[in-house]
Amino acid sequence: VFAKIDNHREIRVGYPEVIYCEGKTVEQVKSIVEFMLTKNKNIIATRASEEMYKAVKEICEDANYNKLGRIITIRRTEEKYTDSYIAIVAAGTSDLPVVEEAAETAKILGNRVEKVIDVGVAGIHRLLANLDIIRGAKVIIVVAGMEGALASVVGGLVDKPIIAVPTSVGYGANFGGLSSLLSMLNSCASGVSVVNIDNGFGAAYIASMINKI
Amino acid sequence: VFAKIDNHREIRVGYPEVIYCEGKTVEQVKSIVEFMLTKNKNIIATRASEEMYKAVKEICEDANYNKLGRIITIRRTEEKYTDSYIAIVAAGTSDLPVVEEAAETAKILGNRVEKVIDVGVAGIHRLLANLDIIRGAKVIIVVAGMEGALASVVGGLVDKPIIAVPTSVGYGANFGGLSSLLSMLNSCASGVSVVNIDNGFGAAYIASMINKI
Amino acid sequence: VFAKIDNHREIRVGYPEVIYCEGKTVEQVKSIVEFMLTKNKNIIATRASEEMYKAVKEICEDANYNKLGRIITIRRTEEKYTDSYIAIVAAGTSDLPVVEEAAETAKILGNRVEKVIDVGVAGIHRLLANLDIIRGAKVIIVVAGMEGALASVVGGLVDKPIIAVPTSVGYGANFGGLSSLLSMLNSCASGVSVVNIDNGFGAAYIASMINKI
Amino acid sequence: VFAKIDNHREIRVGYPEVIYCEGKTVEQVKSIVEFMLTKNKNIIATRASEEMYKAVKEICEDANYNKLGRIITIRRTEEKYTDSYIAIVAAGTSDLPVVEEAAETAKILGNRVEKVIDVGVAGIHRLLANLDIIRGAKVIIVVAGMEGALASVVGGLVDKPIIAVPTSVGYGANFGGLSSLLSMLNSCASGVSVVNIDNGFGAAYIASMINKI
Amino acid sequence: VFAKIDNHREIRVGYPEVIYCEGKTVEQVKSIVEFMLTKNKNIIATRASEEMYKAVKEICEDANYNKLGRIITIRRTEEKYTDSYIAIVAAGTSDLPVVEEAAETAKILGNRVEKVIDVGVAGIHRLLANLDIIRGAKVIIVVAGMEGALASVVGGLVDKPIIAVPTSVGYGANFGGLSSLLSMLNSCASGVSVVNIDNGFGAAYIASMINKI
Amino acid sequence: VFAKIDNHREIRVGYPEVIYCEGKTVEQVKSIVEFMLTKNKNIIATRASEEMYKAVKEICEDANYNKLGRIITIRRTEEKYTDSYIAIVAAGTSDLPVVEEAAETAKILGNRVEKVIDVGVAGIHRLLANLDIIRGAKVIIVVAGMEGALASVVGGLVDKPIIAVPTSVGYGANFGGLSSLLSMLNSCASGVSVVNIDNGFGAAYIASMINKI
Amino acid sequence: VFAKIDNHREIRVGYPEVIYCEGKTVEQVKSIVEFMLTKNKNIIATRASEEMYKAVKEICEDANYNKLGRIITIRRTEEKYTDSYIAIVAAGTSDLPVVEEAAETAKILGNRVEKVIDVGVAGIHRLLANLDIIRGAKVIIVVAGMEGALASVVGGLVDKPIIAVPTSVGYGANFGGLSSLLSMLNSCASGVSVVNIDNGFGAAYIASMINKI
Amino acid sequence: VFAKIDNHREIRVGYPEVIYCEGKTVEQVKSIVEFMLTKNKNIIATRASEEMYKAVKEICEDANYNKLGRIITIRRTEEKYTDSYIAIVAAGTSDLPVVEEAAETAKILGNRVEKVIDVGVAGIHRLLANLDIIRGAKVIIVVAGMEGALASVVGGLVDKPIIAVPTSVGYGANFGGLSSLLSMLNSCASGVSVVNIDNGFGAAYIASMINKI
Ligand SMILES: Nc1ncnc2c1ncn2[C@@H]1O[C@H](COP(=O)(O)O)[C@@H](O)[C@H]1O
Ligand SMILES: Nc1ncnc2c1ncn2[C@@H]1O[C@H](COP(=O)(O)O)[C@@H](O)[C@H]1O
Ligand SMILES: Nc1ncnc2c1ncn2[C@@H]1O[C@H](COP(=O)(O)O)[C@@H](O)[C@H]1O
Ligand SMILES: Nc1ncnc2c1ncn2[C@@H]1O[C@H](COP(=O)(O)O)[C@@H](O)[C@H]1O
Ligand SMILES: [Mg+2]
Ligand SMILES: [Mg+2]
Ligand SMILES: [Mg+2]
Ligand SMILES: [Mg+2]
Ligand SMILES: [Mg+2]
Ligand SMILES: [Mg+2]
Ligand SMILES: [Mg+2]
Ligand SMILES: [Mg+2]
Repeated sequence: VFAKIDNHREIRVGYPEVIYCEGKTVEQVKSIVEFMLTKNKNIIATRASEEMYKAVKEICEDANYNKLGRIITIRRTEEKYTDSYIAIVAAGTSDLPVVEEAAETAKILGNRVEKVIDVGVAGIHRLLANLDIIRGAKVIIVVAGMEGALASVVGGLVDKPIIAVPTSVGYGANFGGLSSLLSMLNSCASGVSVVNIDNGFGAAYIASMINKI
Repeated sequence: VFAKIDNHREIRVGYPEVIYCEGKTVEQVKSIVEFMLTKNKNIIATRASEEMYKAVKEICEDANYNKLGRIITIRRTEEKYTDSYIAIVAAGTSDLPVVEEAAETAKILGNRVEKVIDVGVAGIHRLLANLDIIRGAKVIIVVAGMEGALASVVGGLVDKPIIAVPTSVGYGANFGGLSSLLSMLNSCASGVSVVNIDNGFGAAYIASMINKI
Repeated sequence: VFAKIDNHREIRVGYPEVIYCEGKTVEQVKSIVEFMLTKNKNIIATRASEEMYKAVKEICEDANYNKLGRIITIRRTEEKYTDSYIAIVAAGTSDLPVVEEAAETAKILGNRVEKVIDVGVAGIHRLLANLDIIRGAKVIIVVAGMEGALASVVGGLVDKPIIAVPTSVGYGANFGGLSSLLSMLNSCASGVSVVNIDNGFGAAYIASMINKI
Repeated sequence: VFAKIDNHREIRVGYPEVIYCEGKTVEQVKSIVEFMLTKNKNIIATRASEEMYKAVKEICEDANYNKLGRIITIRRTEEKYTDSYIAIVAAGTSDLPVVEEAAETAKILGNRVEKVIDVGVAGIHRLLANLDIIRGAKVIIVVAGMEGALASVVGGLVDKPIIAVPTSVGYGANFGGLSSLLSMLNSCASGVSVVNIDNGFGAAYIASMINKI
Repeated sequence: VFAKIDNHREIRVGYPEVIYCEGKTVEQVKSIVEFMLTKNKNIIATRASEEMYKAVKEICEDANYNKLGRIITIRRTEEKYTDSYIAIVAAGTSDLPVVEEAAETAKILGNRVEKVIDVGVAGIHRLLANLDIIRGAKVIIVVAGMEGALASVVGGLVDKPIIAVPTSVGYGANFGGLSSLLSMLNSCASGVSVVNIDNGFGAAYIASMINKI
Repeated sequence: VFAKIDNHREIRVGYPEVIYCEGKTVEQVKSIVEFMLTKNKNIIATRASEEMYKAVKEICEDANYNKLGRIITIRRTEEKYTDSYIAIVAAGTSDLPVVEEAAETAKILGNRVEKVIDVGVAGIHRLLANLDIIRGAKVIIVVAGMEGALASVVGGLVDKPIIAVPTSVGYGANFGGLSSLLSMLNSCASGVSVVNIDNGFGAAYIASMINKI
Repeated sequence: VFAKIDNHREIRVGYPEVIYCEGKTVEQVKSIVEFMLTKNKNIIATRASEEMYKAVKEICEDANYNKLGRIITIRRTEEKYTDSYIAIVAAGTSDLPVVEEAAETAKILGNRVEKVIDVGVAGIHRLLANLDIIRGAKVIIVVAGMEGALASVVGGLVDKPIIAVPTSVGYGANFGGLSSLLSMLNSCASGVSVVNIDNGFGAAYIASMINKI
Repeated sequence: VFAKIDNHREIRVGYPEVIYCEGKTVEQVKSIVEFMLTKNKNIIATRASEEMYKAVKEICEDANYNKLGRIITIRRTEEKYTDSYIAIVAAGTSDLPVVEEAAETAKILGNRVEKVIDVGVAGIHRLLANLDIIRGAKVIIVVAGMEGALASVVGGLVDKPIIAVPTSVGYGANFGGLSSLLSMLNSCASGVSVVNIDNGFGAAYIASMINKI
């Protein structure tokens, strides 16, 4: 056996284990899902290829695949969405894969989600025009690549906790998302904390914890 | 005039501007405090030297200085501490300056704080022995240098949002806190987000936002 | 002789050689100035210590020293300031040394200068309140440390060329100005180009070239 | 809708939004172009694949594609080229893709362009032989990979503002353009500012701003 | 001849030369194996592609290939496994390729091996549940990617030497295994030493030396 | 209380907790020692300043200080040195502080130690002349700065496990020990594992574990 | 025209321009060669793909291709090899591509070459056994990846100038040749200078200059 | 004894051991010199403080100290300078300490030296005006900080081997000499090899080897 599924995790941290598919074979992912299906809980598999999705589909007809977000979700518990919502604010169209990973995760964790897309700081009026929907959230996820300035600007405009996700969108001195990551870590606005580059899943997970308080 | 105090900040983001003293002269800090005193709000000045404290003391008798945390606080609004609390969990004795910066900030922001110190993963029973106090918090700040593993371990044991603060404690391949920072950003436990190296203030600020939800 | 003063530089690039004092001894700086005084041209010496200034003062009574900007200037040609001006926009009070280096340089090069200080993105209304003075410039210098987001935000609001100066203000994952530098290089706003960290002199020099077109 | 086209950008910063194609799907690029065509303005799409060009061609017969520069341009406003020109000076043949991106951008923005190619510092007489055309420009773009020394050398010979573009040409300790980027940022010649690695578009954009003063 | 097989190595360091296949052509690997077969000793070839295995198979029927671990082994000396054993403890399923490289190496070097897989710190009870088998080892190999915290946690629980292997499992700020490598080098637990990222072979080699004392 | 001394550590990992003095105040070190003295066990305090030593001396007359190695040791248990020994092999005189930290640690942990100093690879005959003493050890610590080549060379000559300690000796592209660290991690010789830069203590600790098998 | 062949280079630096093929199209390489053939001088094209070779072959029947070294050579001047020779010493079989690039370059530049291959420091007797041929050279090229220790060891054994070439052979903390590069730059042996990672051509070029003195 | 002076080094590599003083105590340096004086050979001690010089002076009246270059030399063998010379070409006045270290080393090794100082590429006519003295050398040392472009420019103008020394002169994105180091390693001019940042000694050593061929 190549995996020790953490069955107690739900009791301990409130949610079952999530499958991280990168570096696993299609067979491994399939058989981990197979085992988890016996527990009758929601299942999330991130960084999943289409091939993995097809393999999972064979053993689970209602498995769902968000292609852009590369994420498989299987619903087993009745969803009761929160009234309060998580706002996902993104700088550009190229950041959409990360937005989708975050949104899918947030939703299967039972959260209402509102997306505000393509409001990068190069045209700040687009952001200002959407401030109400952002300010109305209980917690905000900010997704941005390149220089990641969006996190600081939003941080200066709202009084809600912000989970910032740097993305690897960009080239050259972007160094695979480093510019955006450092930018967000050094935010001059208070109330901003950061997760790993492109980690939409992780941002949604902690945002969900906060949204459900 | 060398500063534009952001008077509207409290209305916008719920709290007055905080003074970051590094790179400012003693005179600049003093005169910014002087101006802010006229507003009759709480004042926080981080990364403050003893000399700065003395200068502030001249114009404000009840200014308070946490020497280890290098932070000046001035109270003007009646504190009404939250019932729920923020747990600050730290790996070692050498991380105390960051713990103090975080604790002072959290307290002046009106939060109850519980500290769990010197429970690094090299002796994990110390952590396990304190799980109740940690689990009882509404939000947890984890402070650790060297390899920063404490964030992941705590993350795997609780169902509360974690704000992780890497510290620059260590030497050699620690590269000024980089090892701990990267470690926390790559946490295999979900529910962990990260602020800048040694940024106790920032961690407390967002934790306060969450604690007050 | 330890220096070959580039006397033809003015003819070639429009301005006499500038003395970079770091890494030079007080004696070296003094004797380079001594030689240049014989040419009866304006003299600029950047990164100069107070000790260097005192030594220069001995041989040149009217030498001027900007302590914050660490820059010595000696005027020999009649100043005829431009009508158009360079706006210097800075994020925080801690960035002032770089602002001063830039402003002194721009002025001795014959430019009108307007400063807009402490308008970092954490309180964006401060920036918006000063847009007219910024938009009225022929070229804009943006000075910012930490995450350097100010360059992108200004870049999205004006139709003038921007010279961005990252500063080393910050700590931890700032890595000596790297976060701000990368941020500015990856700006999602067009019209932004970048000079070295803390290089107020260099920004003013190219801004002057543009302002005088 | 996955994009918020910034229609006011032209009013605000003098030019319509530009499409950055990397990280977008072919469909996304096509439908953004489709929307922008309704505005009857010039369109620029950078980092575009041939496949994207074909998709755009379907909805816009006169779309133009510079294969080397990977850039799509669509002209809708009558071009009135400037009298003054932008000189694009490049070190080697391998830098041509960046040169083409810059030249196409500069031209559709309405600038006269003169190219001086393959004049790297290893054979400095080639540069000296072309000094007149370089000196005649209002602003100069210098494109160079490897050690990027060309920017400093040109900077020492002319009295015009230089926008330096480091390229990723090279291998080993070039680290994806880092050597050239750092070199240009540390230029000992004054009057040099820098854009991101391989960012021909950005260099042309700011050069155009300057050229049109 | 393109190789100088180190025939005396066994006498000098106790074991014949091992073939590192990366950067070698299939033909080179095949002909090195061919030569070594004449010596009638065990042969190990790491980082071997399936194609290389097929080529080796042509000249050696009983060559063995561990596909996950990408390692070819050929047995010529009678194995006499040690009584004491090496424990290989791994954080996640994605770390299995490195585990397999280590296990195959340890076994052909004559060591008994016990594997404890998928016991990452996010669910520490899985580790605690397997402490007996880990504590029973003479030496422990800890394999972990992402934040590599497992090495420190195990280090705090056992009194045996630990050889830690960071893996490149992860993304973003993992930087190809750097996060895990730095984490392990900065372990606050004593008794931990580290080999190169993904170097299962190297870890097994030194563990074997220790296990055979 | 600012410290939770890990009293069970000896039972768990075979040795009492060690005090890491960097980042602690003199008072903190003194009072931790004071507490530990009540347990009547050996005490080790690394990275200790002379001032700390003096403070400790006040409460413990027989405290011992190795000035070069910056390490305080207090002996309470009767030493019974091992027959087998640890060889500490160092490249240059400048590496001595690390050698001393390692040697003091190894000795108080009860190991016989043999030092072979100043045998860097620039004069390899010095190393070859001392091979017998090195080969006679049960485990070898190799200490080297600059390019750290010594670890690989020793690794190719002996059949004993090697713990390599990179030192920060050097300048420029040494980057605080990085060159030596990377060198040792990439050793082409098998049987080499690595601890943190300048971590003499850590090397001795694991070497002691191995020596006592 | 996309290239300015540097025809005077031979007069200036003693050798015609060399074509660096990476980043050029097949057509560009072909037409540069075409032009240079009219000058009737030797031609070298490095980093050339097989496809490029085929294109060159069409216009030059006697073009020669070293597949391992990825280098095209065309001889037009009568070779008169030097009596003195360049020794090329390489650590492992995987370093052969760089060795071949260096050897081909050295030979067409008219130098006698002696290769000593696979003598890495893990088996130092292989090096010692070949000392005579190495010591007999006028200048030595040392090629090594991984930890690059070979340069220092050879440097300590001979009194000839050494040109060290780090290679990208390795993985993990090798970081694309960085470990070997830093190692060679920090060599504790005197008489070692370094060229870029994998730059066999550059090493041969300067070695040829020295060999011909 | 803390040092094993390498007495055979002169026989092996043609020159006695050189003392690297950084990281050694004054006493250590003094006693190494004391021992070496008994051999009656020239002595070189690099990176020596004034205090070390004074200590050496006590036991050796005719010890010489170059304060700028921080190097102690003691002459015991009759100098017979070479006819051919080493040219040391430096970019700026701030590079003088490295120039002096190189020049002193070259001279005590018996070489004629010609210095060409302050000829950085920002004023290339200064370099061109000194081409004769540079071209007349047998080997050239190029010393430059900041962007280190001088090495490439000289490399394109002469047919002599160049040893390039990057210096740590600069600030910000200079990163302690990294910009200049990478620049020189990526030189587009052939015939350039590189030593460590600020390593004037090492450059002179290999230049001396070449000059004496
Ligand atoms: N020089 C050293 N290098 C690395 N780790 C050390 C060193 N000295 C002590 N330690 C470790 O640091 C731990 C104490 O950390 P702290 O709780 O902050 O005092 C000890 O248990 C040791 O395992
Ligand atoms: N996209 C993701 N990014 C970061 N962590 C993840 C991601 N998806 C899953 N995880 C975490 O990785 C753990 C599983 O790792 P493994 O045992 O290797 O399958 C899960 O428990 C999650 O906490
Ligand atoms: N400034 C320097 N830079 C680099 N290496 C040096 C320098 N000075 C001396 N060395 C080398 O360092 C060796 C001495 O190192 P150590 O045994 O630590 O004294 C000498 O043999 C020289 O080869
Ligand atoms: N996976 C591996 N990682 C690190 N070193 C290895 C590995 N496999 C083999 N080696 C070492 O590489 C040497 C062979 O290098 P080469 O001469 O290039 O074939 C062997 O003697 C081993 O010590
Ligand atoms: Mg957009
Ligand atoms: Mg402790
Ligand atoms: Mg402010
Ligand atoms: Mg060319
Ligand atoms: Mg798992
Ligand atoms: Mg020595
Ligand atoms: Mg080999
Ligand atoms: Mg100068």
